[in-house]
Amino acid sequence: MTLQSDRYAFYSDNTASVAPELLAAIAAANEGPQKAYGDDPWTQALDAVFSQFFGTAVRAFVVSTGTAANALSLATLAPPYGNVYAHAGAHVVEDECGAVEFFSAGARLTLIPGEHGRMDPQALEQAITAHPANVHTVQPAAVTLTQATELGSSYRPEAIAALSAVAHRHGLRVHMDGARLANAIEFLDCHPAEVTWRAGVEVLSFGATKNGALAAEGVVFFDPALVRDFELRRKRAGHLLSKSRYAAAQLVTYVQTGLWRAHAARANRLAQRIAEAAGGRLAHPVEANELFLNLGSTGKTALRAQGFGFYDWGPATGSQARFVVSWDQSDASVEALCAAFRAFPAA
Amino acid sequence: MTLQSDRYAFYSDNTASVAPELLAAIAAANEGPQKAYGDDPWTQALDAVFSQFFGTAVRAFVVSTGTAANALSLATLAPPYGNVYAHAGAHVVEDECGAVEFFSAGARLTLIPGEHGRMDPQALEQAITAHPANVHTVQPAAVTLTQATELGSSYRPEAIAALSAVAHRHGLRVHMDGARLANAIEFLDCHPAEVTWRAGVEVLSFGATKNGALAAEGVVFFDPALVRDFELRRKRAGHLLSKSRYAAAQLVTYVQTGLWRAHAARANRLAQRIAEAAGGRLAHPVEANELFLNLGSTGKTALRAQGFGFYDWGPATGSQARFVVSWDQSDASVEALCAAFRAFPAA
Amino acid sequence: MTLQSDRYAFYSDNTASVAPELLAAIAAANEGPQKAYGDDPWTQALDAVFSQFFGTAVRAFVVSTGTAANALSLATLAPPYGNVYAHAGAHVVEDECGAVEFFSAGARLTLIPGEHGRMDPQALEQAITAHPANVHTVQPAAVTLTQATELGSSYRPEAIAALSAVAHRHGLRVHMDGARLANAIEFLDCHPAEVTWRAGVEVLSFGATKNGALAAEGVVFFDPALVRDFELRRKRAGHLLSKSRYAAAQLVTYVQTGLWRAHAARANRLAQRIAEAAGGRLAHPVEANELFLNLGSTGKTALRAQGFGFYDWGPATGSQARFVVSWDQSDASVEALCAAFRAFPAA
Amino acid sequence: MTLQSDRYAFYSDNTASVAPELLAAIAAANEGPQKAYGDDPWTQALDAVFSQFFGTAVRAFVVSTGTAANALSLATLAPPYGNVYAHAGAHVVEDECGAVEFFSAGARLTLIPGEHGRMDPQALEQAITAHPANVHTVQPAAVTLTQATELGSSYRPEAIAALSAVAHRHGLRVHMDGARLANAIEFLDCHPAEVTWRAGVEVLSFGATKNGALAAEGVVFFDPALVRDFELRRKRAGHLLSKSRYAAAQLVTYVQTGLWRAHAARANRLAQRIAEAAGGRLAHPVEANELFLNLGSTGKTALRAQGFGFYDWGPATGSQARFVVSWDQSDASVEALCAAFRAFPAA
Repeated sequence: MTLQSDRYAFYSDNTASVAPELLAAIAAANEGPQKAYGDDPWTQALDAVFSQFFGTAVRAFVVSTGTAANALSLATLAPPYGNVYAHAGAHVVEDECGAVEFFSAGARLTLIPGEHGRMDPQALEQAITAHPANVHTVQPAAVTLTQATELGSSYRPEAIAALSAVAHRHGLRVHMDGARLANAIEFLDCHPAEVTWRAGVEVLSFGATKNGALAAEGVVFFDPALVRDFELRRKRAGHLLSKSRYAAAQLVTYVQTGLWRAHAARANRLAQRIAEAAGGRLAHPVEANELFLNLGSTGKTALRAQGFGFYDWGPATGSQARFVVSWDQSDASVEALCAAFRAFPAA
Repeated sequence: MTLQSDRYAFYSDNTASVAPELLAAIAAANEGPQKAYGDDPWTQALDAVFSQFFGTAVRAFVVSTGTAANALSLATLAPPYGNVYAHAGAHVVEDECGAVEFFSAGARLTLIPGEHGRMDPQALEQAITAHPANVHTVQPAAVTLTQATELGSSYRPEAIAALSAVAHRHGLRVHMDGARLANAIEFLDCHPAEVTWRAGVEVLSFGATKNGALAAEGVVFFDPALVRDFELRRKRAGHLLSKSRYAAAQLVTYVQTGLWRAHAARANRLAQRIAEAAGGRLAHPVEANELFLNLGSTGKTALRAQGFGFYDWGPATGSQARFVVSWDQSDASVEALCAAFRAFPAA
Repeated sequence: MTLQSDRYAFYSDNTASVAPELLAAIAAANEGPQKAYGDDPWTQALDAVFSQFFGTAVRAFVVSTGTAANALSLATLAPPYGNVYAHAGAHVVEDECGAVEFFSAGARLTLIPGEHGRMDPQALEQAITAHPANVHTVQPAAVTLTQATELGSSYRPEAIAALSAVAHRHGLRVHMDGARLANAIEFLDCHPAEVTWRAGVEVLSFGATKNGALAAEGVVFFDPALVRDFELRRKRAGHLLSKSRYAAAQLVTYVQTGLWRAHAARANRLAQRIAEAAGGRLAHPVEANELFLNLGSTGKTALRAQGFGFYDWGPATGSQARFVVSWDQSDASVEALCAAFRAFPAA
Repeated sequence: MTLQSDRYAFYSDNTASVAPELLAAIAAANEGPQKAYGDDPWTQALDAVFSQFFGTAVRAFVVSTGTAANALSLATLAPPYGNVYAHAGAHVVEDECGAVEFFSAGARLTLIPGEHGRMDPQALEQAITAHPANVHTVQPAAVTLTQATELGSSYRPEAIAALSAVAHRHGLRVHMDGARLANAIEFLDCHPAEVTWRAGVEVLSFGATKNGALAAEGVVFFDPALVRDFELRRKRAGHLLSKSRYAAAQLVTYVQTGLWRAHAARANRLAQRIAEAAGGRLAHPVEANELFLNLGSTGKTALRAQGFGFYDWGPATGSQARFVVSWDQSDASVEALCAAFRAFPAA
C-alpha cells in the first residue's frame, strides 16, 4: 500500500519506513527468551553505548515515542508547580496534547519567542525574571530546547551554552528535545557532546524514530541523580516495555554503526539541494532536513497538482509550506521537487 | 545471547520472542512512506478487523504496552473522583506502579477478593454498596476484570455476565484486562464475543505482546461514545505511535490468521501437561498458560539447581512458585519440567 | 497590631478588615448546632439569594478563597487536555501558583493580550483558531474573564458579550473571575445580570472577601448541568466547609443588604478622587478601586518616605505603582495621598 | 434557626457552634489593615505558639478544613507513585472524596486493619513488606494515623511509637490526622509531645474546627525540611487564605488559653457519662468524645422517636449508631440520652 494521492511525499520524517539494518537488529534480538522489562543484554548495554557515544558517563533508557521521552524528562525535572520554558513553536507546546502538563501533574509551559525556532536568551532571561518567584507564582524549574528546531534551524553549541547559562544562573535544569538531533549534529559537524552535556544539557530526548527506527527513542541522563524518579514515572506511564530488547537493540545498532549519521547526512544533503532550487522562497535557514517555503496558495496548489505532498504551515491564512526530507526519501522525489522549483516564476 | 543462568525459563510470557509471522508483518508494512499517527492502511483497518473478530461493530486502537491499554481505558471510564473495583491481585493493582491513579488523575482502586483470582460477585456488590455514595466518598465508576486471571484461572462467560450485571445495576462501566485473553478463549473454547461484549464488557485491553507480538496491544471499545476522550488521553500520554503501521500490522495479522489462537492453544496444552505432572501441588486450576504450585522452599531450590527459572509467588515467607508457559516455550523445557515433577516425592 | 511601617496602606483590598455587618452575621449564625457541610439554612438559602440577585435561576456555592473559586470553576469547564484562554495578566495566570493546572489535572492556560487588562476579542479569536484542533493539540475548552480586570478597568456588558460570542461560536464555555465584581457593577451602574449571564457568562467566581467578607467567596452556576461535578471536585479539594453556615451567612447578608454595593461605591469614589489628583500619571482608566500610576522611582521613593504603602508594578525595571482602595480605606489616607499627588511636580 | 427535627443532636462535633472566645479573637484581629497571605502578626506567631505548645521547634500553618490539612500533608510526604498506609476506616479513606489521591497526583491509599480504629503494627509491617518494592509497584512512602481514631478510641504514646518504628524502619514518613487530637490528649492525660513528635510523628493535622473553631485547622511540621513544598502546594490548592489573620488568631487563642483542653475535657466527660448509661451496648472503648453503640433498629427507632439525632454506623444492614458529643453539647441533651439508655431493656 502507498500514499496513493501523493507521488512525492514530503509530509514528515515520521512517515518514513524503518531502516533494514534496524529490522535486522530486531530479528537478531529475537532468539529465545530474554528477561523482560529491560533486564536483557541490549537494554543493559544502553548505558555503555550512550556513554561511549557522548564521551561521558550517562544513564540511558528507551521509550517508544518522542512525546513520552519529552514529557517524562520534563516531569522528572519540574515539580507540579514548576514553570518550564519552551520556544513558542516547540513540539511540547504545539503537538503533544498537553503531555508535559499531564506527566508533571500540572507544570506550566511558558512560551519564549526567538527567530527561526531558536529560543532567544534575552527573552528567556526576561521571562524567568519577569515576576519574582514567590508563593503565588509557579516556580521556574526547567528550560527545554529543541535540536534541530521545529523550523529546521540548528543551535550552535555556543547558543545552547548561552541558554543553559541563563537557566543555570537561575537554578533551572536544561532538557533537550533531540527528535532530530542527528540532523543537527551532522549539519554542525560537531561531536555529540558539544551540543549536549558540554553545553549544559542535563537530560536529552534522543530521537531515532524519525531517522529510521521503529518506535524507539532514547532518554539520556547526564545527571544520574534523577534516574530513579524517571524510572518510576516511566513504568507508571506505561512506557516501560516488557519486550524492551527490540527497542534497545535498535538504539544500540543505530548508535554503534553510525547509521544515525549516515541517515542524517543523506537527508540533510537532499534538503540542501532543494534549498538551492527553492532560492529566495526560504522562510528559515535550512540546517537540518526541513524546509519552510513561502509559496503562496498558487504555488502550493501548483505543486500539489504535480503530485507533491506536504503540509501547510503557519497561520491559517498563511502561504507557507513545510517540506521534510526523510532518511529514505527517494532521489526521484527530490529531483522532481527541485525541477518544479526551478520551473517556478522567480520569487 | 540467552538467559545463561536458566536452561529452562518459565519466568513469564513476556520473556518470549516475537512470532516470525509478526516480524514478517512488520517487514511487509515497511514499504515506502505512510502517513503517520494512524492514518495508514493497517491502523485504519483495525476497526473492521476487530469488528469481524468480535462479531459486532467496535472501535479499535493500538498502544505499545498493556499498562497503557489498561490505564487509558480506565481513565476513560472513571472520573478523577471515581472508584474502580479490581481483584486484589490484579495487574493494575500489583504491577503497574499506580498507572490507573496516574492516568485518571487520582481515581481509587478498591480491592475485591475472590478465589483463584476471580472477583466474587457478592463481594463486588458489597463493596459497591458498603457506603452510600455521597459528596464525601469516591464515586463508584467502573469494574475491571482480568481474563485469564492473574492466577491462571479463566472466567466463564456467565461469571463475567454476573459481574457485569452487578456493575451495570449500580451504573458502573465494565473493563476487561485481556492481557491473556487468547489463552482464556482457547481454554473456554468459546467465541470472543461470549467473554466480552455479550457478557457486558464495554472496553477491552486486547493483549498480543505476551502471546507473540512486539509491543502491540489493542484497545477495543464496544461503546463508541467514549472514543474521542480516549484518543486525546492516548496522545497526551505519549501512546499514539507515529509509525503506527508496524504495531497495527501485527494486530491485523495476529487476529486474521488465527495466530492468536494457535499460540494460545500450544501454550495452554503444554501448561496442562505440566499440570498433570505436578499433580496435587497445584494451588489454582490451570485454565490458561500459568501454573501456581506449592513446592516448598526445598522443592524450589531443587528445581532451580536443575536449571529451571521461575518466580516465587505469594507472601515473602511462602513456598509457592509461578510457572508461565510462553507461546514459544521449548518442548524440551516442558518435558524436563514434567520429568522433574514426576521425580518429586509425592506432594 | 497595625502595619507599623505604613501610615497609609494601599497595598491591596485583601489587607482590609471584615465588615461589622458580616461579623454580626457570623455571630447571628452561631446559635446551637447546625447540620454540617452545607445542610444548614444559610447555605441552603444561597440558591434563592443569588437567583434573586441575578434575576435568573442559579445554583450557588461558597468556598473560602478566590483561587479555589476560579480553579474549581475552570476544572469543571475544561477537561485535562483542555485549553483555557485567559488575559496574559489574569490572576489565574500570575498569582495562583498554577491552581488551574492543578485542579484540572493539567489543562493549559493560553494567554491573550489586550489593553488595560481587557482581553481583545480578535486576539481571542485568533488564538482559538491559530491551530486547527486535532488529536495532537490541547482542545479549546473555556475562556475566563476578570471583572473588574487586574488593571482596574471594567468590561462593558457588550465587551463581555463580544468575548462570549467568540467563545460560544467555537464551542467554549465562559467563566468570569469576579473577585472585584461589585466594583465593576458599581462603576458600570448596571444590573448584575448584564455583566454575567445575559452577556454569556456560564460560571462566576463571586468575590466578597476583598470587599469586606471573611474568607467567603461564591461560585455561581448559570448552567446547573455542571453542578454535580463541581460539588465532588470541591469536596475532594478540601473546599467543602464543615461549618459552612458562617461563610454562607456572610454571603447572604452581603448580597441581601446591599453591603456589596455600598462598599464598592465608597472604594470606587475614593479611587476616583485619587485619580483626579494623580492627573496624567494614570497608566490605565480607573473603573473600579485600583489605580496604576507612572511615578518613576523618584516619585515612589518620595511617597514611601511620606508613609504610603503600595506595591511596585510591571517589569522589574519599571516605574509603575499600584494603589488599591479598600472598602474600609481611611478618608485620611486618601486625603493624604491626594495632597501628595497635588504637591508632585507636573507629570 | 435550629435543627428543628432533633431536640437532642449528636450527629457530629462539626455541627457545633463556634466558641465565644474564638469569635472574640476574630473581632480582636479586626482592627485596620493587615498584610495579606499570612504576613500578619497572628499568622507570624504560629511557629512560636505551636513550638511552645509541643515543646520543640516546629513550623506551623493554618488552613480552613481538615481534608486540606490531611491531603496537603500527605502530598508533601508521598510522591505521585507513593503508597500511603491508612486504617481501613480512616477519614482520608472514607470521607474525603479521594483528596489524598488528588493532592498527591495519584498516590495510593493502602488499607490496614486494626481493632477499634487503631492500626495494627503487625498488619502494617505485613502490608509494607507484602511485595518487595520495585519499579512495578507503588513505593511505600508514608503512614497516616488518626488520633483520636474514627471509632472513638485513642492511641497510647507507645502504640504510636510502635507504628512509627515500623514506618521508619522501612523509610516511610509518619503523618497524624489530629482532627480530635485535643480529645485524645485529654483522655490520655499526656503532654502533646508524647503522642506526636516524641512518638515519631513528622507532620500533624492539628484539628480545631470540631472543637470550637471557625474553619481553622493547623498543619504542624516537626521536620522543617518539608515546608517549602507544602507552602507551594497549599497556595496552588487555594488554601492560602488572604485574610489569614482571622484563622490564625483563632489558633493562637485556642492553643494559648487552654481552650482546646477545656472543650475536650467537657466533651470527653459527657461522653463518659453516656458510656456509663449505655452499659454493655458499647461497640468500642470510649476514649474521646464519640460513642458507637449496638442498639438494633428497634433501639434506634425508639431513640429517634424521642428526638435524638445521630447517624447510623457500619454496614447498611447493621444496627450500630454513632453519637458524637460536641464541646457545646447541652447538658440537657446528655441527661436525656442517659435517661433514655437507662430506661432501655437490658442489652
